[in-house]
Amino acid sequence: MKIIVEQDYDAMSKTTEQILLGEMLQEKRVNLAITAGSTPVKMYQYLAETVRDKPHFNNVHYYNFDEIPVKGAEFGVTMSNLNQLYFSPAKINQANIHILDEKNYKDQDARIAADGGLDLILLGIGEDGHFCGNLPGTTRFECLTSRVESDATPGMREVMISEVGGDESKCPDYYVTMGPKSVMQSRRIVLFANGQKKATTIRKALFGPVTNEHPSSILQMHPNLTVVLDEEAASEIQAFLD
Amino acid sequence: MKIIVEQDYDAMSKTTEQILLGEMLQEKRVNLAITAGSTPVKMYQYLAETVRDKPHFNNVHYYNFDEIPVKGAEFGVTMSNLNQLYFSPAKINQANIHILDEKNYKDQDARIAADGGLDLILLGIGEDGHFCGNLPGTTRFECLTSRVESDATPGMREVMISEVGGDESKCPDYYVTMGPKSVMQSRRIVLFANGQKKATTIRKALFGPVTNEHPSSILQMHPNLTVVLDEEAASEIQAFLD
Amino acid sequence: MKIIVEQDYDAMSKTTEQILLGEMLQEKRVNLAITAGSTPVKMYQYLAETVRDKPHFNNVHYYNFDEIPVKGAEFGVTMSNLNQLYFSPAKINQANIHILDEKNYKDQDARIAADGGLDLILLGIGEDGHFCGNLPGTTRFECLTSRVESDATPGMREVMISEVGGDESKCPDYYVTMGPKSVMQSRRIVLFANGQKKATTIRKALFGPVTNEHPSSILQMHPNLTVVLDEEAASEIQAFLD
Amino acid sequence: MKIIVEQDYDAMSKTTEQILLGEMLQEKRVNLAITAGSTPVKMYQYLAETVRDKPHFNNVHYYNFDEIPVKGAEFGVTMSNLNQLYFSPAKINQANIHILDEKNYKDQDARIAADGGLDLILLGIGEDGHFCGNLPGTTRFECLTSRVESDATPGMREVMISEVGGDESKCPDYYVTMGPKSVMQSRRIVLFANGQKKATTIRKALFGPVTNEHPSSILQMHPNLTVVLDEEAASEIQAFLD
Repeated sequence: MKIIVEQDYDAMSKTTEQILLGEMLQEKRVNLAITAGSTPVKMYQYLAETVRDKPHFNNVHYYNFDEIPVKGAEFGVTMSNLNQLYFSPAKINQANIHILDEKNYKDQDARIAADGGLDLILLGIGEDGHFCGNLPGTTRFECLTSRVESDATPGMREVMISEVGGDESKCPDYYVTMGPKSVMQSRRIVLFANGQKKATTIRKALFGPVTNEHPSSILQMHPNLTVVLDEEAASEIQAFLD
Repeated sequence: MKIIVEQDYDAMSKTTEQILLGEMLQEKRVNLAITAGSTPVKMYQYLAETVRDKPHFNNVHYYNFDEIPVKGAEFGVTMSNLNQLYFSPAKINQANIHILDEKNYKDQDARIAADGGLDLILLGIGEDGHFCGNLPGTTRFECLTSRVESDATPGMREVMISEVGGDESKCPDYYVTMGPKSVMQSRRIVLFANGQKKATTIRKALFGPVTNEHPSSILQMHPNLTVVLDEEAASEIQAFLD
Repeated sequence: MKIIVEQDYDAMSKTTEQILLGEMLQEKRVNLAITAGSTPVKMYQYLAETVRDKPHFNNVHYYNFDEIPVKGAEFGVTMSNLNQLYFSPAKINQANIHILDEKNYKDQDARIAADGGLDLILLGIGEDGHFCGNLPGTTRFECLTSRVESDATPGMREVMISEVGGDESKCPDYYVTMGPKSVMQSRRIVLFANGQKKATTIRKALFGPVTNEHPSSILQMHPNLTVVLDEEAASEIQAFLD
Repeated sequence: MKIIVEQDYDAMSKTTEQILLGEMLQEKRVNLAITAGSTPVKMYQYLAETVRDKPHFNNVHYYNFDEIPVKGAEFGVTMSNLNQLYFSPAKINQANIHILDEKNYKDQDARIAADGGLDLILLGIGEDGHFCGNLPGTTRFECLTSRVESDATPGMREVMISEVGGDESKCPDYYVTMGPKSVMQSRRIVLFANGQKKATTIRKALFGPVTNEHPSSILQMHPNLTVVLDEEAASEIQAFLD
C-alpha cells in the first residue's frame, strides 16, 4: 500500500490525475474503470484539459463500475455524471467508453476479462465505508458484478430516490455494481478521498478489521493499492505513517 | 483466478513445478516464498532435480512464511522440513535462503519489502481452511506477520506438540506466520492441493464466503491467483468451471 | 541478457520448454511467435505432450514469423512444419493459430499490435547469423514485416528451391518474414541453439559487432533476451560467462 | 514506439514530466537515468516543483548516464548540471543519487543490474544523432559503459573544452558514457526533443537506417520507446504518423 498525503483537495486532485496519466501514457491498450461523484470533480477538470484533442490517448478505454438506472432516461445516474464531468469535456471517443448498465451487468466481468482486464480502477469512498455500489448490507466480498434491490437495506430506497434527483417516479427497482471480488481483480487500485468527514472511514478502510460491515476494508488486501488523501482525510492515520 | 485441474498428484506436482520455473527463469532477482508440508513433496523432488547445480537459478531467493520453533534445536519445524525436502537436495546457496524465525518475525514484512517484494508465494491448504499458520481463530485477515500463542485456540497446543514430534518438552510457547495481509501483497499466489479430503476446503476457499472462519477464502480476492488441483481436490467445484 | 548453458540438446530442449510454459501458464491471453526448423524438434515433442488436451492452455495464441509459400499447396513451408511438429500433435485449436502468409504479410505488425503485442518470440539462429527470414543481404535492422525476393541474394533461389523440397516448379518468387524491427518489439525474446556448428554464430550474435552482416547481432540489444544453449553451442563464449 | 506530438516546448516538457511521474508514483523502488542539457530545463522546473518535500517520492533513485570530468572540480559537467537543474531545487536526498564518474564507470552496468535495472531512461538527442555521450565515431552499438578519449574524433577536444566552460586547463583527457547496449537494457526509454533544428535527427533516429553513423537510430529497436516532441521537432515525420 502506498499512501500519499497532499495538503489539500487541489493537490490531491492533481496527484491523482498524475497517477492516471502515468497508466494512460503507454503504447498498449489501457483499461480504466473510473468513478463518478463529488470527489473527482477537480481531478476530471485537470484530466479533461490534459486529454482533450490529444490522439496519443486513443489507447485508453473507460469503464463505469456501477449504475443507477433512471426510468425514462437514456443514461443512468453514473453515466450522466461521467459524461458531464469527463467524457464530454475531454471529448472521449464513444468507441472507447464501455458502458455498464442494468441490461448488461451479468456480462461485465466476462467482458472486462475478454478486453484484457482492468489496468486501474479509481475509487472514491463513502463515510459508511462503501466503494462503488457496495454499501454495507448489500453485496459481500465474494460478489462479482451484482444487482442490488431497492429494498436491500432499510434506507436504500430513499438513497436511490435522492440519487435520481428526488423524483420517485424515476426511481428504479434496483441498481448494478461491480462487486468487491470484481474490483479486486484490477491490476491496480487507486483510492482517493478528501475532507475531515472521510477521516474515520479511511482509517477503517486501510487499518481496521477486514469486514463486510465496512466494505472498503477489503481494499487493504490488494497487492497494488495507491491511496491519495488530503491532510484532513489522513488525519486519523498519522500513527500508521512512518 | 486461473484454475488448473490435473489428473493426479504427479501431474499436479509437475504443473506446479512448471509455474515456479516460469517465474524463476528470468534474469532479474526473483523472490519466492514456499511451503513446507506433505503436498509439495513430489513437486520438490522434480524441482530439486531441475535446479541442482544450475547457476542460472542463482537469481532466485527463497523465504519461508511460517515457523514453529523447536526448543533446543537449530532449526524450527518449517526450516527443517524445507531443508530436507528442497534446499539440501537442490543445493541452494545459503545466501539465497532468507529465514523467518521467532527472533526476526517482526521485521519480516519490512525485510521482504526492502528486498523488492515477493514475486510468488506457493501455498498449501488445510482441511480447516488454513494457509501458512493462519488457522481459524488465530490471525485475522488484516494481520501482517504475527506471533500465535500456543493457547490461541482450544486444540492448538496438541497440534504444536504433534508438529515438534510429540515431545512436549520441545513444544514452544508460540509460532510465527505471515498473516493474510502479508501473503496477499505477493504479486502472484499459487495454491495447490490434492486428494479427496481437500475437496470441500478448496470449494470454500475459492467460491465460498470470504470469512475468517475459513482463512483461505481471502485468496479468491487476489488479482493474480493460480490454483493447481488434482481431480479429487477439484471434485466439488466442477459446477464453477466453464 | 540471461544465458543458460545446458549439457546437451535434450536438456536445452527441456529448459526452453519450461521458459515457454512459464509464459503460457498465466491467466491472461498470451501471444507467442514460434519457430519452425530442426532446433525445436525435441522441444515441441515435450511441449506437445504437456499441452495436449489441457484446457488451461486455451489462453495461448500462436503466430508464425515467416513463410515460404509453396505453389499449389494449402500451407507454406513454415506452417506445414509447425503443423507437423507442434500444432497437430498438441491439438491446438485453429482459432488460436494466427497465420502469416504471402497474402497478409503487410498487416502482420498491425495485427499483432491489435492483439496486444507479442509476449515472447522463440528464435533459432542460422550459421550465417540469420533469424526468422532475415538472412544477410535481405532485410535490414529497420525493416518491419517484409517481402524478400527470390533473387535478393546470389544463392537465394537455390535455398528456396531446397526449402520447398527441391521441386523448382513449387518455388515461389518470394517469401515473407517479420523483420528485425518487428521481432525486437516482442516483450521477451528467447533464442536457442545447439551443436558445435552454431558456436561461432552464437558468439557473433551475442558479443560481436551489431551489424546487418550478422543479423542476429541485433538481438543482444533487447532488454529481455534469454538464450538457451547446449555446451557445444556455448563453446566460444565461455570467456564472457561469469 | 509511441510518438507524442505536443504544440510547443512547454507542452512537451509537461507531458514528459507526466510520463516520469507515472513511473515514479509506484510503491516499489524506481530507478531512473536522466539527462542533463538544455532540452530538460523546463521539464525539471515542473518536476522539481512536484517532487520537492514530498516523501512519497523517496522510492525513486536517480542515475546519471554520462560524465565529463572537470579537472580540479568536485563534480563533472553532467552532475553539476543535474544538481543545478533538478537535484538541488527538488531537494533530492543524496542517498537516492547514484553518481557515474570517471572513477567508477567500469562498474556502472553491474551496479545498475544489482540495483534491479533501470525502469526508465530519459534521453535527449543531438543534431548529429548522438544520445548520452554516444557521438558518431566514438562508441558503437555493442558498447556497454565506456571511456571515450578526447581525441576519439577530429573535433572532440574542442567540444570537450567548450563543455568545461572554455578553459582548456580544465579539459579532461576523456569522458565516460553508458553505451548503446547499456541504454537499451532499460525497461523503458523516453526520448524527447524540441525545435526545428532537431527535425532531421528525429526522422533519422526513428525511421532511418539503424547505423552507428546516427547512434540514436538504435532506439527505434527498443520494445518500449516513448517519444515526446514539439511540432517543430516532429515536422519531418508527419508522413509516418497515421
